[in-house]
Amino acid sequence: MTKTKRIVIVGGVAAGASAAARARRLSEHAEIILIERGPDVSFANCGLPYFIGGEIKNREALAVQTPQTLKAMLALDVRTNTEAVAIDRAGKRLQVRSLASGAEEWLAYDQLVLAPGAMPMRPPLPGIDDPRIFTLRSLQDMDRIKAAAATAQRVAVIGAGFIGLEMAEQFVHLGKQVTLVEMLDQILPPLDHPMTLLMEDELRRHKVELILGDGIESFSGEPALTCRLKSGRTVSADLVVLSIGVRPDTALAKAAGLELGPRGHIRVNGFMETSDPDIYAAGDAVEVKDFVTGDPVAVPLGGPANRQGRLAADHIFRPEQTKPYTGALGTAIVRVFDVAAGLTGWSEKRLRAANRPYRTVTVNDNHHAGYYPGAKPMLLKLLWEPATGRLLGAQATGFLGVDKRLDVLATAITGGLTIDDLAQLELSYAPPFGSAKDIVNLAAFTACNARDGLVTPVDAIPDDPSVQVVDTRPAPLVQAHPLTQVLSVNIPLTALRQRLGELDRNRPVVTVCAFGKTAYFAARILVQNGFTVSTLTGGIRAHFDPRSPAKLPTP
Amino acid sequence: MTKTKRIVIVGGVAAGASAAARARRLSEHAEIILIERGPDVSFANCGLPYFIGGEIKNREALAVQTPQTLKAMLALDVRTNTEAVAIDRAGKRLQVRSLASGAEEWLAYDQLVLAPGAMPMRPPLPGIDDPRIFTLRSLQDMDRIKAAAATAQRVAVIGAGFIGLEMAEQFVHLGKQVTLVEMLDQILPPLDHPMTLLMEDELRRHKVELILGDGIESFSGEPALTCRLKSGRTVSADLVVLSIGVRPDTALAKAAGLELGPRGHIRVNGFMETSDPDIYAAGDAVEVKDFVTGDPVAVPLGGPANRQGRLAADHIFRPEQTKPYTGALGTAIVRVFDVAAGLTGWSEKRLRAANRPYRTVTVNDNHHAGYYPGAKPMLLKLLWEPATGRLLGAQATGFLGVDKRLDVLATAITGGLTIDDLAQLELSYAPPFGSAKDIVNLAAFTACNARDGLVTPVDAIPDDPSVQVVDTRPAPLVQAHPLTQVLSVNIPLTALRQRLGELDRNRPVVTVCAFGKTAYFAARILVQNGFTVSTLTGGIRAHFDPRSPAKLPTP
Repeated sequence: MTKTKRIVIVGGVAAGASAAARARRLSEHAEIILIERGPDVSFANCGLPYFIGGEIKNREALAVQTPQTLKAMLALDVRTNTEAVAIDRAGKRLQVRSLASGAEEWLAYDQLVLAPGAMPMRPPLPGIDDPRIFTLRSLQDMDRIKAAAATAQRVAVIGAGFIGLEMAEQFVHLGKQVTLVEMLDQILPPLDHPMTLLMEDELRRHKVELILGDGIESFSGEPALTCRLKSGRTVSADLVVLSIGVRPDTALAKAAGLELGPRGHIRVNGFMETSDPDIYAAGDAVEVKDFVTGDPVAVPLGGPANRQGRLAADHIFRPEQTKPYTGALGTAIVRVFDVAAGLTGWSEKRLRAANRPYRTVTVNDNHHAGYYPGAKPMLLKLLWEPATGRLLGAQATGFLGVDKRLDVLATAITGGLTIDDLAQLELSYAPPFGSAKDIVNLAAFTACNARDGLVTPVDAIPDDPSVQVVDTRPAPLVQAHPLTQVLSVNIPLTALRQRLGELDRNRPVVTVCAFGKTAYFAARILVQNGFTVSTLTGGIRAHFDPRSPAKLPTP
Repeated sequence: MTKTKRIVIVGGVAAGASAAARARRLSEHAEIILIERGPDVSFANCGLPYFIGGEIKNREALAVQTPQTLKAMLALDVRTNTEAVAIDRAGKRLQVRSLASGAEEWLAYDQLVLAPGAMPMRPPLPGIDDPRIFTLRSLQDMDRIKAAAATAQRVAVIGAGFIGLEMAEQFVHLGKQVTLVEMLDQILPPLDHPMTLLMEDELRRHKVELILGDGIESFSGEPALTCRLKSGRTVSADLVVLSIGVRPDTALAKAAGLELGPRGHIRVNGFMETSDPDIYAAGDAVEVKDFVTGDPVAVPLGGPANRQGRLAADHIFRPEQTKPYTGALGTAIVRVFDVAAGLTGWSEKRLRAANRPYRTVTVNDNHHAGYYPGAKPMLLKLLWEPATGRLLGAQATGFLGVDKRLDVLATAITGGLTIDDLAQLELSYAPPFGSAKDIVNLAAFTACNARDGLVTPVDAIPDDPSVQVVDTRPAPLVQAHPLTQVLSVNIPLTALRQRLGELDRNRPVVTVCAFGKTAYFAARILVQNGFTVSTLTGGIRAHFDPRSPAKLPTP
């Protein structure tokens, strides 16, 4: 049995509450004090946008636990509206202040767990203190936004990351006129650009005004608030939500001299120990090991926060049996109306920026058997390490089953699976759920084919007049949806063997079709007849028209 | 470049068609002859029940390819209605017979691929040849059943495996009065019994008469067909579908002296080569390596068949680059009305029968965040190897997201992940898709706790009067849904610390609750107060009432 300890935990939401609950299960007799600056503990912060938009109707549902339930169930000493103000590391004590009374006291600890989380960024722009500008972190922020939304007509959301997108969707549900502003030239910054187009389209279909490649510069004016952008463009709004990212809430840790990372995150080892072995840290405020590279990375997401908090408690009470944190993948997903998009592991832009070798393919297929009603198209991108074939990352977007493929591929990265392993992966198949060759298998087949030189994938039609673009779709499809961007010749796959004479063996060929399937078949025919061929993987739909229902190309 | 070869493939559905298509892509100039006994090639056999029931309305959708499209797209020589009658291995030729004309000829081959599939079992019972008794393998079988169903009122389905369940569901859609007969005492024989209860309940809710633990003995009678069961019970039916399993269609292989397994499957190596290296085999007719044990196993499923066919073609044309088949997991799923159930890897009953060491836990949780509308309960069972912690198998049943968890866990087995790895698995989380601690994480937490002795799981309340059963649910819930099966004392978790005196430290305790969560918390309190405690994992709902909506237990 462990000796009785006093554990003090700063922060009562995901990581902090998980640490406290696990600590109690491991030690019935420890004293566990949970300090929380806000009035709430253990609330469902990922649910806040959905209460604002009315999808979640019951505010109580968001309070997963209350100080009372934590006390009753886990015998925790929960102190809300209480701020941690200083750590005396040598004395192993934490100074706390009641926000109600201002009273301060020192709490001795055997181990301290810091789970302060992250705060929405609020840059010091002109007009930033206008009361119509909100950020979303707490239930109180949520209540304020919901109240303001009741009378607002025009809403501007600044930042098209996960929370910005969820907020834009929810404001549309409320009937608002929504403008979404993003500094980058795409929504969903962690993803590669082509994987965000379906969701962009979905936003526009729902009348969200999307302003990309433009940043906020200042706010001013009455009665409507004018948001002035860097381009000079202005957006009028009755309500603004800023969702341009978060920064770790680590002033306390910094003041205590704990080691921090370059962007202010608390450095921890695999057991969530900070540079002071009696102080643990977990959640959005820490830097952990990246699963793929082992480098430090900050992943402010609910899932990792929960597990890190739990791990810290494990290490406090049973260090010998505790397995270290295996590293963060940054698996994330967002739904906007009917479209989902997400990623796991490394993106292409991140690999490129880090100058790490990689290869990639993108494929387009249905989320379940095409012959069963309700099949929806999906785009799936794999990134792998050329030397080993190991999966480095994956991205998916579509209507249904996106979460499943991301989760399979997150598990694949965790297991060190290669593209060869993924080609053989035996996933569950019945017509309502999948395909005999799931899109994960298909993507891996394509990856192996690319690796083995059976196909030369390109992700855009080269802008080069010497290239012969061969559109292998059936003629009626080409007439209905012509390839307008480039000069091409339509040779349906079924006619290709007879029409080889129309092509010039001395000029490179790019084959294209709706999804990349017949174009690949065509490429195989052409290569074996002496042509130099590359193929638009994922097909035209993936690049120009991701929403079109995927139909198996009929020859 | 490979030399021009002649490849002859026997069987034109999943494995055969995949082999042919891949062969053509690898060799534009090979001669590829596809022999099919039936009139159709490459049809969607997993879709047949759904056309009978009307969910799939368009029969054409099931013909993924036709002989004409295969010819046009892949330049295959497709010979339907043609039977392979003999193999001359020494002469490397196959004798075929046209079923229309009876004409026979010998086809020389460089490589022969056998993909004959499996046939529904039709035991020689009295009355078995009655024309009202059907099996389902081909589009013609489907058409015949659909025609017979048009006038039938009462339908008996014999065998409650995957196809039997799908057929029972579809006959209910058609308004039939359905009796489902299964020889074992459970539906879904590959699964462990408790994991099938939710689906049993779903069948009964839809008025399917379920007869378990009884087998068919004979058929007789007019005007209705009387199905006489081993128990003496009789079932009257206008139409009977027999779905009691399949046997490999390997008479040709056997006559040719190819090595077969104990139940008549063709033995192949990892490259799908039979005992004759010029003859490959793939699909439902073969025995492959089991992924978990490496022992030979037959897995008659569409996904493996497709990939095995492709692999055979790979090995014919590019043996050096071909990776061997990694082994079959037997991942399978079925949907019956709103309920899904499935498995991957080994079941408990199979592990027990093989006398392999294992441990197991079953957990009960929502398929996505409980605070987001639409959360549905799910039951998830993990089986792992005690010495290593490696996952050996998993089963799931529920309403939504069952396929996702099975696929994640199939991938986990493929990657050799342990219960510790699964505890840290970083799956995609947004409220519509999952939970910060997904049910996969939760199951792994529970497994690790069991391994580490933090919880002693039991999967039934022991029938032992010395045991004190402590029901930790809130009192109102106990009043509404009392635990009638056993004598128990209701001590809600929140009162337990105050009421320890009511329990006898000298008698073992079993804690139970709705899901297994507060019972686990209670067990931790009791153990640390000197009691000997085990816990009903998965909770009461899992064992007695799997359909009840899962709600987080409020203390």
